[in-house]
Amino acid sequence: MKEKIIRLAHGAGGRMMADLIRDTFAPPLDNEYLRQMADSTILPFDICNLKFAISTDSFVVRPLFFPGGDIGSLAVHGTVNDVAMSGARPLWLTAGFILEEGLEMDVLERVVRSMARAAREAGVLVVAGDTKVVERGHGDGVYINTAGMGVVMEGVDVGPDQARPGDVVLLSGTVGDHGIAVLSQREGLAFETELVSDSAPLNGLVEDLLAAAPHTHCLRDATRGGLAAALNELAETSRVGIEIEETAVPVRPAVAAACEMLGFDPLTVANEGKLVAFVPPEEADAALTALRAHPLGQEAARIGVVTDEHAGMVLACTPIGGRRIVDMPLGELLPRIC
Amino acid sequence: MKEKIIRLAHGAGGRMMADLIRDTFAPPLDNEYLRQMADSTILPFDICNLKFAISTDSFVVRPLFFPGGDIGSLAVHGTVNDVAMSGARPLWLTAGFILEEGLEMDVLERVVRSMARAAREAGVLVVAGDTKVVERGHGDGVYINTAGMGVVMEGVDVGPDQARPGDVVLLSGTVGDHGIAVLSQREGLAFETELVSDSAPLNGLVEDLLAAAPHTHCLRDATRGGLAAALNELAETSRVGIEIEETAVPVRPAVAAACEMLGFDPLTVANEGKLVAFVPPEEADAALTALRAHPLGQEAARIGVVTDEHAGMVLACTPIGGRRIVDMPLGELLPRIC
Repeated sequence: MKEKIIRLAHGAGGRMMADLIRDTFAPPLDNEYLRQMADSTILPFDICNLKFAISTDSFVVRPLFFPGGDIGSLAVHGTVNDVAMSGARPLWLTAGFILEEGLEMDVLERVVRSMARAAREAGVLVVAGDTKVVERGHGDGVYINTAGMGVVMEGVDVGPDQARPGDVVLLSGTVGDHGIAVLSQREGLAFETELVSDSAPLNGLVEDLLAAAPHTHCLRDATRGGLAAALNELAETSRVGIEIEETAVPVRPAVAAACEMLGFDPLTVANEGKLVAFVPPEEADAALTALRAHPLGQEAARIGVVTDEHAGMVLACTPIGGRRIVDMPLGELLPRIC
Repeated sequence: MKEKIIRLAHGAGGRMMADLIRDTFAPPLDNEYLRQMADSTILPFDICNLKFAISTDSFVVRPLFFPGGDIGSLAVHGTVNDVAMSGARPLWLTAGFILEEGLEMDVLERVVRSMARAAREAGVLVVAGDTKVVERGHGDGVYINTAGMGVVMEGVDVGPDQARPGDVVLLSGTVGDHGIAVLSQREGLAFETELVSDSAPLNGLVEDLLAAAPHTHCLRDATRGGLAAALNELAETSRVGIEIEETAVPVRPAVAAACEMLGFDPLTVANEGKLVAFVPPEEADAALTALRAHPLGQEAARIGVVTDEHAGMVLACTPIGGRRIVDMPLGELLPRIC
């Protein structure tokens, strides 16, 4: 049944957001590019025989500062990563700020400096900006939109519809760090081990991966909705099945403990510095070696395979030898996580 | 004195916003492109000997629907116009939505349909999107960010630093319509004549203008801060003086009456479908003819000249024969106008 009002779950990266996009945004705005439904859109540009990748993301994370990052660095990493997932080198970012009246100037300055540092580290330039201010009580301190643009690397052809049966599913590291770090900060939860967001720019990792495995079929960063949403989207768009070994998915003990306490499945918790890559089997070893050689991929793992059975579904082999369906999260898990 | 907190005026397109950009955003993010401080940033792209123009704008207008437009059409027109002001053909838009929990789905659908219609009319494609949802009471129904990208037309070289003494200052039509239309809707003011926003895509008008006057030096759309802010920014950036004839600036009688009643100077009230062009004198007649031949420029007028005196200042000859300084508005006039 179609919803009559917007709910928090409509923004949470799961099934309800997919429905909103399909029912409300896509029909009027439809065009061949928007239809790609990828992390960033690939735009062939025949004037110079290049392909551009363009992406946009708004950031409404709460709180603004969390262990391992803040809304400024996150706004750079999120969009850089979306552009990189098209096999593109990100070049330029735009930054649109919606500020709340009464925001402390010190806070804004910290956010902007963090954003600048993250852009330098990722090798991108912020080339255009905009500022709006809304009355006290509207907004929430700072919202940031970044749009990003890059050029698809030569010879690369990755896309969410490119997965093929036999592809090896690689994951670049531990899952759930970002979501649990933000949540623990927001709710004032204290854990024995400090939980730190994995927020990081993945463009360097993607370049190394594609150099080692140039026939990589799919790349996706596992953000809102976590690994579960990323895999389900790829299974649906490519009309293939995916089978993963649940025990092969790396999860930090502190994150696993927090998830158990809170009743979360780590596969559905957001990441901001992790990607999945679907690689043809003959390039899988080289791809895994390349990922592990990069500082952001040291804990990379082979977690599963693409199958020609149960198209559109993700199955996990459980530690006790059974199989379970890894569903697309509905969406209400963690609002305001990015 | 530097402000310690963000005020509404920091987003209003006047002096305080300029200070915020100069003091807080520009230093950490500085690079040669961002330094252009234009409506959109021109990015030379040596791979194919093209120049791109890129812009971003967030829209927080209140109310969402107003006579002559709504936040959806405005989000297209605002960014299309910023890209066009670099002498570029806008091609692609991204759209980032921040929705408030509880927003009626009907309202969102109307906004998206309006956005789609505006994009079709302007000849641009929305190629990427994003949706976030914030809790009830945060946000304000719908905020939209659009980023836009286009290609600078061959042989065109316009920029805010290109004004030269002797240039003729042309204005494409009446001023103040958008600001007064939104304000009257928001405050429930009833005027005898309905006031309608001038929100419109100016890319077609710019193409016609540049075909007739290819050596045009400056283009700027007079949005937040109105004509006064646009002229002051160009005078400052080009280090020239500007003298306008106040009686030559077209103002609809209903807008003039509303401004008088409310104590506003029409030169400082926002427009969303009006541009100023600085054109060398030998091309001024052709430029004015081209503007007037276009449906969106029928009331275009020659309103003044660029001088080599009083650099950085805008002077107006008043109806009674005096001269007054047209100041950069400070900023508090009309929040949430776009």
